[in-house]
Amino acid sequence: MHVTDLIRKKRDGGELERAEIEFLIAGYTRGSIPDYQMSAWLMAVLLRGMTRAELAALTECMLHSGQILNFADLPAAKVDKHSTGGVGDKTSLVIAPVVAAGGLYVPMISGRGLGHTGGTLDKLESISGFNVNLSADEFRGVLRQCGAAMIGQTAEIAPADKKLYALRDVTGTVESPYLICASIMSKKLAEGIDALVLDVKTGSGAFMKKEEDAAFLAELMVETGQRLGKKVLALITDMNQPLGRAVGNTLEVIECIDVLNGKGPEDLHELCLILCARMFLLGGRTKTLEEGRNLAEAMISSGKARDKFREMTRLQGGNSAVIDHPGLFPGARHTADVPSPASGYVSAMMSEKIGTACVLLGGGREKKEDVVDPAVGIIVHKKLGDKVGPGESLCTVHYNSADRLEMAKPLIAGSYTIGPEPPKEPRKLVYRVVGDCG
Amino acid sequence: MHVTDLIRKKRDGGELERAEIEFLIAGYTRGSIPDYQMSAWLMAVLLRGMTRAELAALTECMLHSGQILNFADLPAAKVDKHSTGGVGDKTSLVIAPVVAAGGLYVPMISGRGLGHTGGTLDKLESISGFNVNLSADEFRGVLRQCGAAMIGQTAEIAPADKKLYALRDVTGTVESPYLICASIMSKKLAEGIDALVLDVKTGSGAFMKKEEDAAFLAELMVETGQRLGKKVLALITDMNQPLGRAVGNTLEVIECIDVLNGKGPEDLHELCLILCARMFLLGGRTKTLEEGRNLAEAMISSGKARDKFREMTRLQGGNSAVIDHPGLFPGARHTADVPSPASGYVSAMMSEKIGTACVLLGGGREKKEDVVDPAVGIIVHKKLGDKVGPGESLCTVHYNSADRLEMAKPLIAGSYTIGPEPPKEPRKLVYRVVGDCG
Repeated sequence: MHVTDLIRKKRDGGELERAEIEFLIAGYTRGSIPDYQMSAWLMAVLLRGMTRAELAALTECMLHSGQILNFADLPAAKVDKHSTGGVGDKTSLVIAPVVAAGGLYVPMISGRGLGHTGGTLDKLESISGFNVNLSADEFRGVLRQCGAAMIGQTAEIAPADKKLYALRDVTGTVESPYLICASIMSKKLAEGIDALVLDVKTGSGAFMKKEEDAAFLAELMVETGQRLGKKVLALITDMNQPLGRAVGNTLEVIECIDVLNGKGPEDLHELCLILCARMFLLGGRTKTLEEGRNLAEAMISSGKARDKFREMTRLQGGNSAVIDHPGLFPGARHTADVPSPASGYVSAMMSEKIGTACVLLGGGREKKEDVVDPAVGIIVHKKLGDKVGPGESLCTVHYNSADRLEMAKPLIAGSYTIGPEPPKEPRKLVYRVVGDCG
Repeated sequence: MHVTDLIRKKRDGGELERAEIEFLIAGYTRGSIPDYQMSAWLMAVLLRGMTRAELAALTECMLHSGQILNFADLPAAKVDKHSTGGVGDKTSLVIAPVVAAGGLYVPMISGRGLGHTGGTLDKLESISGFNVNLSADEFRGVLRQCGAAMIGQTAEIAPADKKLYALRDVTGTVESPYLICASIMSKKLAEGIDALVLDVKTGSGAFMKKEEDAAFLAELMVETGQRLGKKVLALITDMNQPLGRAVGNTLEVIECIDVLNGKGPEDLHELCLILCARMFLLGGRTKTLEEGRNLAEAMISSGKARDKFREMTRLQGGNSAVIDHPGLFPGARHTADVPSPASGYVSAMMSEKIGTACVLLGGGREKKEDVVDPAVGIIVHKKLGDKVGPGESLCTVHYNSADRLEMAKPLIAGSYTIGPEPPKEPRKLVYRVVGDCG
């Protein structure tokens, strides 16, 4: 087999066989196929696409490039949720404790924030002492004991993806839905899960601005997961405004604690219930979606989910006192309001700008190496459809540097469109469901 | 400027500005842009194409990556011919002396054979002592003295092309007509020529099997040359059978000497006259094509072209005695005939197989590093339309190894289709002319 022939085959729109994809991925992971050949192939994939069989083979080869966790000994289904990322998207911190409290196992491997979106690991690390770098054995121990554990990708998990992602990042080949699907699914399936609920975001704060692009990626991921023998379902959900009100690591954790206490913003609370209900159903914990939703609500109202979060935090070395006393979180030194320039109704939000503003405040990463300031962020007071008076506060900024505040403010103000009338269409949280719950 | 942005721009079908292309080519040549980014960009170019403005900019940047020869001090036009390559395609060795004898300068930088096609440099080197590795000053000296000089690409000429070609070769990005055009034209325009005639081959022995592909490449090259201020014209010519009768380095040189002596195969002789006439006209030496043809014929019939070839050979260190006594060439040790398996008429030839048979005999290169045996080759007795009796010789093979003969023979026999009737369509030597002679 010659690499150049495989590049040419894909370049000319052909379908690669499983053995050919395996040859490429194994050779690249091992280092016998150089970056310059792989990047040409990746560009050919981006422009020519893949068949579903090719995509399943690619995902499986990437999955098998590393360790696949096995929790078959645990006495209930292992389920997870993955979001494609958004602004204020913090459901993982609510969902993992709720689903674990409900009796399933959630072995969650997450990522860090990059660009305008936040990352679960950064949020967790705003809890002092929280260790997201557990060994596989430690991960298993926490999972077994409390039903949920949350870590970052280890060197052993899908090393092919790690190498390919670094290459895609510098060769203009990130945006292929096929490559995105293989990247996400190879990591998620390495968690040893039985079922996966995908939260595919669409809108002004998502990577996929158009619903049809989000739906296409969702279909690829659902089919790929099913071809590899897992129960997978995707929800296409709204990211035309930040989810909840908090953007920024500590602020978002506090908001999650609010939700676990039965409070918190309605949209965030509702989306968490929807996702948990799907996970309970897919994991076989409940027979209907309604039962699943009721179970999730019960786990919150009873305080059991909050207890799980406290337990998991403690087991992973974090200062669990903050769960009960969020005032213990170190806050930013200053706050400032961003006033509305006009009166009317919020008719549109460029949510990506809110996310970017948070990065500028120091709360996210422009480059992988950047250090995150957990305390800074934005509390969003006005969301789509809200009435605003002139000078009324749109957002409150939590900041540690006046210079950074000045960079962030115009982005926040500029993210709002204030119109004379409220938007006519009612806000939707979920646009559609992809895959069936079978 | 970020490389990734430029890759993405081309990937998404955008048009790169001149400065962007310059940034890429200069950075790549210098080594500040790595292979893996360039190969992704090359694949995007292959699949998305380029505008004519982009192509001219790419060609110019590659041209300016190295030395551009300047022969403005020489008192007549500098012209050259370039062929895209074929089997038995040996016109350069006739054309350079004829055009130099006719009063123009031919500063020809040629290549080596690779794959099924031969290369001018290998042919010249079958003349003992012939040095194709002259310095720029030596090249200028020979050119000034006798009007023609023939060398290989130096390290100083278009280094960007050298580096890009090596990368294209291993990343499935050779076949793009845009990249082929930029590669050829950047090298040819570095010769310091005023005018260029392109012989774009099409048919079973050419790289471009289809006439429309050849014509498209021809149009790209003509327009690119014109955009860069040169007179350029292309002929689309037949390569459905070997040109002339000889295939193999020494055999081809002897055939060229035959043509310079007013003998040799009719098709080769005719194509040389056609190409020389175009060069004389484009170089302003004659006012009409007919005059140009007459001049070329006169240079052959008077022996002046042969004298030029002898002079050039001597000036470049070659044993010029072979020009007058071709019997001095070392021949292959053995010959063998390839008999026809049937009687009838030659109705088709897979010329590429004849070229590959010559490579298998040792007369060409499978890999760049291969050493060429100049003496081996094939004399083609039967060409398209010829009548053959059963067992009659199709070709005579000149060989030095019985093992290699056995590998070559079936390819030669298999390249012939013998039908019951002669082909109805008359053979054409030139399919069309691209560009205008203005």
